[in-house]
Amino acid sequence: MTDSLSSSRAIVKYNQHRFTETTDKIVIEFPLTIYINNEEFATMVCSPQHFEEMVIGFLASEGVIHFKKEIKEMTLDEDRGFAYVQLHTEEIKNQQYFSKRFIGSCCGKSRQFYFQNDVRTAKTSMSTTTVTAEQCIELMRKMQEASLTFKNTGGVHNAALCTADELLVSRSDIGRHNALDKLYGYSLLNGISVRDKILVFSGRISSEILTKAAKLGVGIVLSKSAPTDLAIQLAEDLNITAVGFIRGASFNIYSHPERIVLHD
Amino acid sequence: MTDSLSSSRAIVKYNQHRFTETTDKIVIEFPLTIYINNEEFATMVCSPQHFEEMVIGFLASEGVIHFKKEIKEMTLDEDRGFAYVQLHTEEIKNQQYFSKRFIGSCCGKSRQFYFQNDVRTAKTSMSTTTVTAEQCIELMRKMQEASLTFKNTGGVHNAALCTADELLVSRSDIGRHNALDKLYGYSLLNGISVRDKILVFSGRISSEILTKAAKLGVGIVLSKSAPTDLAIQLAEDLNITAVGFIRGASFNIYSHPERIVLHD
Repeated sequence: MTDSLSSSRAIVKYNQHRFTETTDKIVIEFPLTIYINNEEFATMVCSPQHFEEMVIGFLASEGVIHFKKEIKEMTLDEDRGFAYVQLHTEEIKNQQYFSKRFIGSCCGKSRQFYFQNDVRTAKTSMSTTTVTAEQCIELMRKMQEASLTFKNTGGVHNAALCTADELLVSRSDIGRHNALDKLYGYSLLNGISVRDKILVFSGRISSEILTKAAKLGVGIVLSKSAPTDLAIQLAEDLNITAVGFIRGASFNIYSHPERIVLHD
Repeated sequence: MTDSLSSSRAIVKYNQHRFTETTDKIVIEFPLTIYINNEEFATMVCSPQHFEEMVIGFLASEGVIHFKKEIKEMTLDEDRGFAYVQLHTEEIKNQQYFSKRFIGSCCGKSRQFYFQNDVRTAKTSMSTTTVTAEQCIELMRKMQEASLTFKNTGGVHNAALCTADELLVSRSDIGRHNALDKLYGYSLLNGISVRDKILVFSGRISSEILTKAAKLGVGIVLSKSAPTDLAIQLAEDLNITAVGFIRGASFNIYSHPERIVLHD
């Protein structure tokens, strides 16, 4: 079976004290360089799918755009790995802050660490959505099922935007951030409100993932893996419910447990 | 049990249709901002250990320095998360290329993708080291054992520099790159030749990890996880043996299998 996120390669397998030649599915890693107004902006290494979503989501995450309409034109050279974005304005917002750390004067526990771009774009969640414990487990199961590539190669991260009952859209990428950027781009391209949605993620909840969830505007983040301490602090500050280690019939709630309920 | 890479936090656990309050070990994510010659250079999010190694390894990886002696002075403010590096020269090498993509005129399969800094620092391996299959499995087992934090939180990546017989140095970090930067820094600080060593890594072999291995100069990379296609292409080009999915008594060899042998 083939899919666009992985390719077949000859390998040597060692098992039971023997080497054998065989083929294996390998996850694809694809470099995409983004030009804005004819100037090189950034290069992402990603899974070669949903480029448009990813570029738009990435630019929104970085605070370069806020709406799809700010983009005049986007041309994709998918063979060579280039995205050429023309904005309606000549000036590129936030470029000077790109990855510059923000040191605020309020030295609270976690607020002392944000990147400057994040201060402008990460929002405290206003979500009043709740979800039952069983729905959390079910959503994680559905997302894992939806991702063929993971089963084939074990090499990509999966992320999905959901309601309490169903997956709305699911994206896979070699890069944890890219998967979220694709979801962000999808919601911007399709005018979908994210505030009442749930983010389901296969990877670890790091501070960067939590910040990105806040940029999207979700109130609940469900993960198969562990969160970090900084992510939990940010989740507390930004009013986001962080759930981790969803495995089998159990999971852990790390912040704002009021959104996870036993019954509807 | 506590260690400096994780902290204890109150959480809510869901299991067997019940919520219970408990405490859990959470991996720590620590922001470290590097200043070079009084100018902000980069911020890394890392595990709060071995800062000096990490900064030196990172600067070497980025081509800013090649030897420890190029650093006049380094001051660490570990509480606030700052590293102040003074170089002997005023000019900061390679800053203008930082994360800029390199598009070479030779459009081979994989060489078309490197970051500009990588072209300057990634080396084709000249290593003639070999290792037996059983040693590969044993080295992975030893590295996993050496990492307490992984067992506690499941949240960090582990990397180790080894000979065929033993672990020389093992480092853990929330960031895959940071763990390798710490090893690189360690070898520079201690004047250790890396060419004849083996790199053991808990995470996926991405192109960036493979490139970093080439910068260190190792000939063999052993991983518990999957490699990407681009990483395999680079491994073939750079004469590096890439081994993945070391689990139980089996593993896969993806490139240059001649360095993995059945018997000494």
